[in-house]
Amino acid sequence: MKETRICIIGGGSRLWAIQFLKDLAYNRNTHGTVVLHDIDHNAAMNNVAVGKEIFHVNDSEGRFDIIAEDNLEKALEGVDLVIISIEPGNIECRKGDLLLPEEYGIKQSVGDTTGPGGIMRARRALPFFFGFAQAIKKVCPNAWVINYTNPMTLCTAALYKAFPEIKALGCCHEVFHTETFIAEKVSEWFNVSVPDRREIKVDITGVNHFTWVTGATWNGIDLMPRIRALAEDKDTYKDLTEVAKKRVEEKKWFDSDHIIALSLLRDFGALGAAGDRHLSEFVPFYLTSDEELWKYGVVRTPYWWRVEEDKRKKAKVFSEEELKATLSDEEGVDIMCSLMGERTLYTNINRPNEGQISYLPKGRIVESNGYISNNSIRPIVAKDPPLAVQNMVRRVSDIQEMTLEAIWNNDEKLLFAAFLSDPLMTLNRDKAKELFDKMLIASAYRV
Amino acid sequence: MKETRICIIGGGSRLWAIQFLKDLAYNRNTHGTVVLHDIDHNAAMNNVAVGKEIFHVNDSEGRFDIIAEDNLEKALEGVDLVIISIEPGNIECRKGDLLLPEEYGIKQSVGDTTGPGGIMRARRALPFFFGFAQAIKKVCPNAWVINYTNPMTLCTAALYKAFPEIKALGCCHEVFHTETFIAEKVSEWFNVSVPDRREIKVDITGVNHFTWVTGATWNGIDLMPRIRALAEDKDTYKDLTEVAKKRVEEKKWFDSDHIIALSLLRDFGALGAAGDRHLSEFVPFYLTSDEELWKYGVVRTPYWWRVEEDKRKKAKVFSEEELKATLSDEEGVDIMCSLMGERTLYTNINRPNEGQISYLPKGRIVESNGYISNNSIRPIVAKDPPLAVQNMVRRVSDIQEMTLEAIWNNDEKLLFAAFLSDPLMTLNRDKAKELFDKMLIASAYRV
Amino acid sequence: MKETRICIIGGGSRLWAIQFLKDLAYNRNTHGTVVLHDIDHNAAMNNVAVGKEIFHVNDSEGRFDIIAEDNLEKALEGVDLVIISIEPGNIECRKGDLLLPEEYGIKQSVGDTTGPGGIMRARRALPFFFGFAQAIKKVCPNAWVINYTNPMTLCTAALYKAFPEIKALGCCHEVFHTETFIAEKVSEWFNVSVPDRREIKVDITGVNHFTWVTGATWNGIDLMPRIRALAEDKDTYKDLTEVAKKRVEEKKWFDSDHIIALSLLRDFGALGAAGDRHLSEFVPFYLTSDEELWKYGVVRTPYWWRVEEDKRKKAKVFSEEELKATLSDEEGVDIMCSLMGERTLYTNINRPNEGQISYLPKGRIVESNGYISNNSIRPIVAKDPPLAVQNMVRRVSDIQEMTLEAIWNNDEKLLFAAFLSDPLMTLNRDKAKELFDKMLIASAYRV
Amino acid sequence: MKETRICIIGGGSRLWAIQFLKDLAYNRNTHGTVVLHDIDHNAAMNNVAVGKEIFHVNDSEGRFDIIAEDNLEKALEGVDLVIISIEPGNIECRKGDLLLPEEYGIKQSVGDTTGPGGIMRARRALPFFFGFAQAIKKVCPNAWVINYTNPMTLCTAALYKAFPEIKALGCCHEVFHTETFIAEKVSEWFNVSVPDRREIKVDITGVNHFTWVTGATWNGIDLMPRIRALAEDKDTYKDLTEVAKKRVEEKKWFDSDHIIALSLLRDFGALGAAGDRHLSEFVPFYLTSDEELWKYGVVRTPYWWRVEEDKRKKAKVFSEEELKATLSDEEGVDIMCSLMGERTLYTNINRPNEGQISYLPKGRIVESNGYISNNSIRPIVAKDPPLAVQNMVRRVSDIQEMTLEAIWNNDEKLLFAAFLSDPLMTLNRDKAKELFDKMLIASAYRV
Repeated sequence: MKETRICIIGGGSRLWAIQFLKDLAYNRNTHGTVVLHDIDHNAAMNNVAVGKEIFHVNDSEGRFDIIAEDNLEKALEGVDLVIISIEPGNIECRKGDLLLPEEYGIKQSVGDTTGPGGIMRARRALPFFFGFAQAIKKVCPNAWVINYTNPMTLCTAALYKAFPEIKALGCCHEVFHTETFIAEKVSEWFNVSVPDRREIKVDITGVNHFTWVTGATWNGIDLMPRIRALAEDKDTYKDLTEVAKKRVEEKKWFDSDHIIALSLLRDFGALGAAGDRHLSEFVPFYLTSDEELWKYGVVRTPYWWRVEEDKRKKAKVFSEEELKATLSDEEGVDIMCSLMGERTLYTNINRPNEGQISYLPKGRIVESNGYISNNSIRPIVAKDPPLAVQNMVRRVSDIQEMTLEAIWNNDEKLLFAAFLSDPLMTLNRDKAKELFDKMLIASAYRV
Repeated sequence: MKETRICIIGGGSRLWAIQFLKDLAYNRNTHGTVVLHDIDHNAAMNNVAVGKEIFHVNDSEGRFDIIAEDNLEKALEGVDLVIISIEPGNIECRKGDLLLPEEYGIKQSVGDTTGPGGIMRARRALPFFFGFAQAIKKVCPNAWVINYTNPMTLCTAALYKAFPEIKALGCCHEVFHTETFIAEKVSEWFNVSVPDRREIKVDITGVNHFTWVTGATWNGIDLMPRIRALAEDKDTYKDLTEVAKKRVEEKKWFDSDHIIALSLLRDFGALGAAGDRHLSEFVPFYLTSDEELWKYGVVRTPYWWRVEEDKRKKAKVFSEEELKATLSDEEGVDIMCSLMGERTLYTNINRPNEGQISYLPKGRIVESNGYISNNSIRPIVAKDPPLAVQNMVRRVSDIQEMTLEAIWNNDEKLLFAAFLSDPLMTLNRDKAKELFDKMLIASAYRV
Repeated sequence: MKETRICIIGGGSRLWAIQFLKDLAYNRNTHGTVVLHDIDHNAAMNNVAVGKEIFHVNDSEGRFDIIAEDNLEKALEGVDLVIISIEPGNIECRKGDLLLPEEYGIKQSVGDTTGPGGIMRARRALPFFFGFAQAIKKVCPNAWVINYTNPMTLCTAALYKAFPEIKALGCCHEVFHTETFIAEKVSEWFNVSVPDRREIKVDITGVNHFTWVTGATWNGIDLMPRIRALAEDKDTYKDLTEVAKKRVEEKKWFDSDHIIALSLLRDFGALGAAGDRHLSEFVPFYLTSDEELWKYGVVRTPYWWRVEEDKRKKAKVFSEEELKATLSDEEGVDIMCSLMGERTLYTNINRPNEGQISYLPKGRIVESNGYISNNSIRPIVAKDPPLAVQNMVRRVSDIQEMTLEAIWNNDEKLLFAAFLSDPLMTLNRDKAKELFDKMLIASAYRV
Repeated sequence: MKETRICIIGGGSRLWAIQFLKDLAYNRNTHGTVVLHDIDHNAAMNNVAVGKEIFHVNDSEGRFDIIAEDNLEKALEGVDLVIISIEPGNIECRKGDLLLPEEYGIKQSVGDTTGPGGIMRARRALPFFFGFAQAIKKVCPNAWVINYTNPMTLCTAALYKAFPEIKALGCCHEVFHTETFIAEKVSEWFNVSVPDRREIKVDITGVNHFTWVTGATWNGIDLMPRIRALAEDKDTYKDLTEVAKKRVEEKKWFDSDHIIALSLLRDFGALGAAGDRHLSEFVPFYLTSDEELWKYGVVRTPYWWRVEEDKRKKAKVFSEEELKATLSDEEGVDIMCSLMGERTLYTNINRPNEGQISYLPKGRIVESNGYISNNSIRPIVAKDPPLAVQNMVRRVSDIQEMTLEAIWNNDEKLLFAAFLSDPLMTLNRDKAKELFDKMLIASAYRV
């Protein structure tokens, strides 16, 4: 493969950037330069050291130069690939996203994609993305751009809003988890060892974190009848409150049994293709109380833990073991290799709708399957889910469009219309306005 | 005008059918025959007597023959116009529509169009409408059909489902009330006496009872800036709890100050064009409690009053004064005269979408302006409301489509998906299922 | 009616402007000021004198002030209505439009709407319309604008291209002639005297001069079965060569027997709703030779006659008799009166597609029925014609779109693509390019 | 790979069926049974012998059983894959397709896809395809179906018309030839040996034989600037009359230099992606005369040669050499292997439009890229070509739709509307009708 120059915006991150560097190190035939850019330049500098160590530990020193660059435009010069994974605002901002709605009785399990928290997070994040897109347009208009930041759909949409010709896609591993879940079921159903999740072929449709499986095969075998039977089976829905409580105790906030995903299949006709903690935020009736949510085994990530985790990440020191590259579940490097022409990749992608989702307007950022090859990403036409699902997805996509327009035009009235339209909004209008006003203040951007 | 033969399905009604006969009597140059058909043949027979008296009292005896006919197909023979205004099931059925959801905390102000009550009412009503359409197809396929029954959209859709070439429209006076409201404001704003509501020209869009004004003029003057200013004015939203309480006391369930209509303009960008009691049912946050609703001066019609009213209507004896024909607010006779070529009429119509509402799929029953002339009804293209409004209307229209398909195919699973998707549904899924099952039983059709 | 200020762009015209002034004089309750603006200021000045005489002859002096104004922006100041009827370039330009294609074997009957001549005429005309729209935007953005200039669709489209919020419509009398033709048939069929063309209600669809009747009624009677029978009748198509020859002799270039219109109904399923000389230009097989065209009784207007007529018009002296106002077939004043709120009008309009024509993209200028009332013009949803007709209309509309974009962006390559796509283009590509290049030079704008 | 049962309808063909069997023999890890079904059972029986010999010659005897089956339903029993490649009617029918239009001055280079000949061929072929689909629905509804018969689009559409759930696709090698042409240019441009055509990645859009390249890469290098320069270069269009004459002499009817393909890029903005002999039939101006066509180096396949070739094929005796399997340019076996899960394939497919072509209605059979994997074929969203190209493709697709509906409903009037709408139709209407009537008789189905 040819020399590849990569810029990581958010390159100071102790989690995502490090994982990406490990994946690079795992991948034997890539080489080039990684430029770490971060609003916190020290963090980027620290990661340069860690990065070098990764290539050393994995016996791959020299294949990638790791440098840090404070100036965004300089960081983007000559790059083939831009990776964006940032945290918009410090951990204090998340407090407003999460605790204020809770004070008003609105519970969010994640609060970074949708709901009051997702909208406010978008309001902080999007101006950065407008800026990134403008810098890319100026410095490296032909570079490929992969965004990992949430709210994924809106951040990716912001890139296209500011630079419509940008070659960007949004990437997310939630669909992989659904594939893994199905792979485990395949193991049960066919009495085989658990196949790699890549062996499960799913037809997907929707918007990120509110994605849906309309078809699934393994070795050409249609799995939908079996998945449907599982969704119809009453035993699937036994009370998981005790499981949930244990998860709270053990701080396993991210675990998912895909029970909400299955209940959506039972009630609306397509399988949810994201973790239950994400799916529950797009529908009004799962998050009515923790008790209700716990029945599905789902627990909400508490703000206090996020604060602790934030501290932990920043103070993180990596053992040699932790720097050892292994096959990870992220596809960033796979995508890069495919775009560089080394292979082809059939996966899920977040891209402007050109027709792949026929029930959503053109131009909206949608999640569907896609085919990635040498310098090319093409969406695959998704199968239409039942109208009940289209209806829910369209609602969410419309609210995202309103949010994007509101932030782009600095239109607070329209932002409030989006806020009020959110599926999680059950407050009366005046209370909603009160909360909105408080959140506007609380979530103002701060480093 | 030529001799016109009219069949009134639901011709035993003491309210609607009598009003229509009075309108006929008021209109000097119509003549022909009215055939009253009712599932309760005695009621129809009684109305024959009242009808004759109406033409007598108004010095117009002889212009219309009034007869009753028990057999539907015979009743339809040779008719030019079919009017449908029925009550699907007896007053007991309404109990299930209204009180069961209330037990579960779901409040409905009307419960005949949308919400759990509207869906169950549709389930009782639509099989009748499939039957009416089939009879019309067989006996009088070229007759014009006016439907007044709620749920208006779904009943009209049912006619088209069973006989796609039917020449039907749904009629509703809610938009007229909005026009009257605006006319009163015109009087204030321009210091003139209140103009006739027909002088207020509104551009409308949406689905029945969730209709929206996107433009309004009087004498060519654009009224929208004034209406918008009113919607933005904080004084518009003073607490009307006391007004509401008085309304409860005085049983004035139908009064509306259009405050919710205005708040929708403020928050979403278009003026609601139906009474507040209707509008509030399509949005999750007005009906959270009676107290919340009262703030807008809106009161919910209680079930016990409906029972009393039902009795009252059935026992109704008309004084001579009450039979005197005056200019009414219903347009049935105007439409008839226009279809017969005597005049033309620009009004609001509920018809299959041929393109008049660009944000809804073709074929859905939608409300827009229309132009009625000799043997012709043509929709007028509606202006697009803001995306926030499109989003809400599309959601409702999708749920209506799901409901129609579910009832047509007798698909309880799909009906539950519609039920679960309703904006008023805030129960958790299992509670919703419990309520759904109870309502299915309670609202089974009974005479 | 209130004082109305009207600006006529092309106010020096001896034909159209004079007719409009006569119509104004005929209409008793209009009054105000007419500003005549013309690139040939002398012509406008001469028309001031004629205009004054018109109001004098018709005993209506004083109701309208007639003035001429050389400066466009001044001419537009304070106007309620702008009328545009110009000749883009002098009569010499028409030579290129008409004679050059003829040299290459391409015959055009009119050559001002479509075909090579129409495209070149558009190229001369559109820059003016971009300018008019910009001036209107600056000086009188709320004025209503009526365009009569050909190519009608493209000139009207140019107004919207340069000022998307303009309140413009294109007006054309061709549909009226079709109504008159049907009225004459009604007289035969029902043995009545010929009804006024306004009594014939037609459902129309298409683009100007390639408009189609999909429904026609008289007194509510569906006339389509009779019209269809006429179209199927072999006797309808008897050879009219002798009639055509006589027309040539008598210089009756504009006569139409609507035989091509009927043949389109027979072969494609909808009745052409423009004179045959227009319809024949949109389809490849009528204009293959004069002999072929003559069979339908259609003759082509020769260039030499246009030159003579041009001279005649410029030298025209009006007798008192000729200045007498009578009921004309033009609707400009009717539209004005409707927009001023004096009446309402149901007619055919050329406006941007908002959904009235479901088989064409939004935004294209299309011809459909419309409803004109106080300060409002709203399109009526057209019925879909058969696919064969949609196909032909869409082709034409696409070519118009390409022409508009080409002229707007000064893109000669795209203009040639439009030229090559035209239904009348049967030359091989290199000959077509040769003709195109010659026409570009010949039809450059000249006064 | 699992045992695969294949039915070849048209299995008596000496050309196509034999090639498929050779491809099967070349492909080492396929095995199973091939059922040859043909209306000429003897031909099928003869091919059984040849087929066995193929497996013998290639040392692969036994891997595929070859049998012949006269009864269609029996032939389809238990099959995984159906291949359809038939000749609708005997060679006499082609005489009407080709010579009758020629008598009227309409020249066709191929006459099997579009034009008068294509339409008449469709009329003969489609009833067979309705029948095939019904048999497949009854006997093997889950089998995959590959159609090779022309008119490809319409034959494939006929399958879906009669059995909407059929799992069918149409396959064509024309795009491969365009890839090969580009591969040869790549060799020139980059001074490398000619790459395999599979290395050229093209984005395609359109309908079969009127397909277009909107993007092309090799090793991730965008080739479009170079291809565009070639299309703009005057030298590209030097007169090829002498080449053409030599081709006529040497009977090289199928050779193409892709000059018409390039001229379409120059004039309309996208590269034609089929041989010039196909492309020229969809546009009015290439086939005006043989002399005109020859300039592009294109020659028309004469009817007399087709008769000779038909005889030759039927009498064909295969040498051992000719039965040797080599890598062929057909993808039938590749597709089969991909559907069986052995690999994945990115190629061009003809399938119902689900959104892959945004400028054509849903449901139309269109050609786009597609991704074939285990038991799955999914279309890839095509990039929109310029409006000039969309316009031409839409016109053709509409005519195909009209033809399909006409044949399905046995509607001769509609078939004539399609006939009259064809780009090659330049006759006047009465001559067109005369030709149509003669062709109807001449092309009646005969064995």
